[in-house]
Amino acid sequence: MPRYKITIEYDGTGLVGWQRQDNGFSVQQALEQALAKLSPREEPPVVYGAGRTDAGVHALGQVAHFDLKGDYTADKVRDGINYHIRPNKVSVLKAEVVDEEFNSRFDANERAYLYRILNRRPPAPLKQGQVWEVKVPLDATAMHEAAQVLVGNHDFTTFRASVCQAQSPVKTLDMINITEEGEEIHVRVRARSFLHHQVRNIVGTLKLVGEGNWTKEDVKNALEAKNRIAGGPTAPAYGLYLTEVVY
Amino acid sequence: MPRYKITIEYDGTGLVGWQRQDNGFSVQQALEQALAKLSPREEPPVVYGAGRTDAGVHALGQVAHFDLKGDYTADKVRDGINYHIRPNKVSVLKAEVVDEEFNSRFDANERAYLYRILNRRPPAPLKQGQVWEVKVPLDATAMHEAAQVLVGNHDFTTFRASVCQAQSPVKTLDMINITEEGEEIHVRVRARSFLHHQVRNIVGTLKLVGEGNWTKEDVKNALEAKNRIAGGPTAPAYGLYLTEVVY
Repeated sequence: MPRYKITIEYDGTGLVGWQRQDNGFSVQQALEQALAKLSPREEPPVVYGAGRTDAGVHALGQVAHFDLKGDYTADKVRDGINYHIRPNKVSVLKAEVVDEEFNSRFDANERAYLYRILNRRPPAPLKQGQVWEVKVPLDATAMHEAAQVLVGNHDFTTFRASVCQAQSPVKTLDMINITEEGEEIHVRVRARSFLHHQVRNIVGTLKLVGEGNWTKEDVKNALEAKNRIAGGPTAPAYGLYLTEVVY
Repeated sequence: MPRYKITIEYDGTGLVGWQRQDNGFSVQQALEQALAKLSPREEPPVVYGAGRTDAGVHALGQVAHFDLKGDYTADKVRDGINYHIRPNKVSVLKAEVVDEEFNSRFDANERAYLYRILNRRPPAPLKQGQVWEVKVPLDATAMHEAAQVLVGNHDFTTFRASVCQAQSPVKTLDMINITEEGEEIHVRVRARSFLHHQVRNIVGTLKLVGEGNWTKEDVKNALEAKNRIAGGPTAPAYGLYLTEVVY
């Protein structure tokens, strides 16, 4: 039975996140229902994702895999899912036939996220639910400099959600880059894997630096405290995008 | 009574357009209701816009003016409207106190529009209602070259809606620029003023060129036919943005 790898874009608004939940509709469920319609005569396949994005988090480059009976070409799988998944706001950008050993989650070497802050006073009707609207002017350069203390191998307990199921709070942050893009501030991060809420807790902390309330030293002290209480607040889910999974 | 000039951004989705209508809610109405709440003791002011955008058309830089009793600073007007206008997707970017002779519509020297085409096969959940999704690959260079026959002073009857109320179909198109921006094709136009549906009819015609079905010569012939039947179809409203009004 051939295995397919798909690259997916989705609007996380109103969804309970990647994973199946009892309390709402998930991206995984939307994909599985579309596959069941595409290939109605077989047992509906299980779709395995590379990263379990939270409720409300978006994706520009989530990756998943599944096995499918029949002799569908990759393009037929892409177009078939996109046809049957409507009106759910999930889109398959690319489908590929891969080796039957391929595992979207365990084979991933790096995951990349983008966090979009809109930094201006008036509301942004055309970006609602796609950016974190911060009215106070933020210093992106100060945020970038302070963020560099987080790069490398650290115990990230300070930036870890209490419900996080990872065995260890130690992770290696490969990169964190903060840039101004017109009226937006973009936070880009890369790591092999992340703790639950790690990116959002980092962004919420760096906002304190951007406002001038925290220094680079404060971020360093927070990291070294290894205590969630020492970190800043959690930035909202709707500013976050899973942009890439590298294999 | 001081006169205010405001620069406005809005998401046109679900609105009947700029102007008050009997069959739905307009941007003008949203602004007038917000002003009535901001300044409840006076006769609700009438808000005059620079351009009457159609139902579904967005704005990044619409301009309007109105008179308001009381001694509000420009910033108070901006923030007050933005507070009271919620949850309507209309935002005042800037408010200025202007000369009492200022007229947003008649003093405008140039209007600029952007039309966004998303040119890829998979749907785009995060851009729904903000771009025209065209799956067939378009040749932006051919579109740009063909579009240049429209620049200058012409009778634009071919690109004019039958319901257009302008006295003359003769207009001067100052600029039309078509560029590729990643997966999008952007059509940017500038003129002192436009006929009803002029931009959308031009974009619908240039799409025929982008697909390879029409040549630059066909566009020239269509323009010279001075007949709406000779032009291409009307591009959808939701790809269009009023970006700037120049005084």
